[in-house]
Amino acid sequence: MNEVKYPSELLENLVNEFHRLPGVGRKTALRYALHLLKEDEADAMNLGNSILRFRAEVSKCRVCNNICDNDLCEICINTKRNHRLICVVESVADVMAVENTAQFNGVYHVLGGVISPMNGIGPADLDIPALVQRVAEGGIDEVILALSPDMEGDTTCLYIYKKLADYNIEISTIARGVAVGNSLEYADEITLGRSIVNRIKYSL
Amino acid sequence: MNEVKYPSELLENLVNEFHRLPGVGRKTALRYALHLLKEDEADAMNLGNSILRFRAEVSKCRVCNNICDNDLCEICINTKRNHRLICVVESVADVMAVENTAQFNGVYHVLGGVISPMNGIGPADLDIPALVQRVAEGGIDEVILALSPDMEGDTTCLYIYKKLADYNIEISTIARGVAVGNSLEYADEITLGRSIVNRIKYSL
Repeated sequence: MNEVKYPSELLENLVNEFHRLPGVGRKTALRYALHLLKEDEADAMNLGNSILRFRAEVSKCRVCNNICDNDLCEICINTKRNHRLICVVESVADVMAVENTAQFNGVYHVLGGVISPMNGIGPADLDIPALVQRVAEGGIDEVILALSPDMEGDTTCLYIYKKLADYNIEISTIARGVAVGNSLEYADEITLGRSIVNRIKYSL
Repeated sequence: MNEVKYPSELLENLVNEFHRLPGVGRKTALRYALHLLKEDEADAMNLGNSILRFRAEVSKCRVCNNICDNDLCEICINTKRNHRLICVVESVADVMAVENTAQFNGVYHVLGGVISPMNGIGPADLDIPALVQRVAEGGIDEVILALSPDMEGDTTCLYIYKKLADYNIEISTIARGVAVGNSLEYADEITLGRSIVNRIKYSL
């Protein structure tokens, strides 16, 4: 669809806006827009208003940068969680992913990205000083670095490790290896290689 | 992702709203929402406002039901087009699809759907009376039925044909056959069968 002519400027405008969402092409954007036209007006308005409210009212947790509706997020105010254990993640989506495993009872620190010279993101663009500050204030036993297993993630891990190395805490990263349910045959060689180097003692 | 816990009610609300768009699951909805958080506030607000404006201000062409910003659509007010030739389509998206071919210089009539007893859509739910009215008023030479080649489309074609049969006009449907560039081998037997029955005389 090159140089599509839209019957209405309002439609064209909306298609352009939807098109900016990740993974949404012009055809999909048009489908979304025309869907809103078919829906009840109240439903369509709800989407618009939800976006405006979300962007205007959602706030960041003062401690961990997770998003929340107040000053502190639900995880940081939860006294049943282990506040001596910090899991460092890239984004809010990663907090939700780790929470869904139900395997982690500590608290989080959301960096807001990873070091990526290709995209012009340096350490100064991430919320690493606040993490160092939290560790410096004491009361932390361990920091788990749960970043993506790629160049950027590894660089960021190394950078944070160096910043935190002088404090008397454990620093760990999440295990990388062959995914549960995957066949060895289809694992890429780097992952398989790492999972051999970092093998775990078998015990019953 | 069953029973995902969202860190913020505003986020959960927005994910639910995005989730109502066609083909958008909860994971994609979350991705959209978190993308809006990363963007500049003005950009995110633009999407919300575009939706509200679109739904509140866009109108339907008084003649053909195409969407437009005024009382009549650009196609209906264009005097260079052939107003004696009406192409009947299901939706606004279909108008845009036919327009993109640059093969049609007539005007349109948007039904707003097709007859589909499965989905509870009967002839009364479609804008067929207005089409009959346009034909009855005279000045029309031909009505092209450009509906999807499926049960619902064929039923709707037949229904409209019967309504218009008494008027002195040509009624045609778009050709169904093997798509351009497709190999015969992969065409389904119904399509291939129809393309043989409705064969066209070869001429140079």
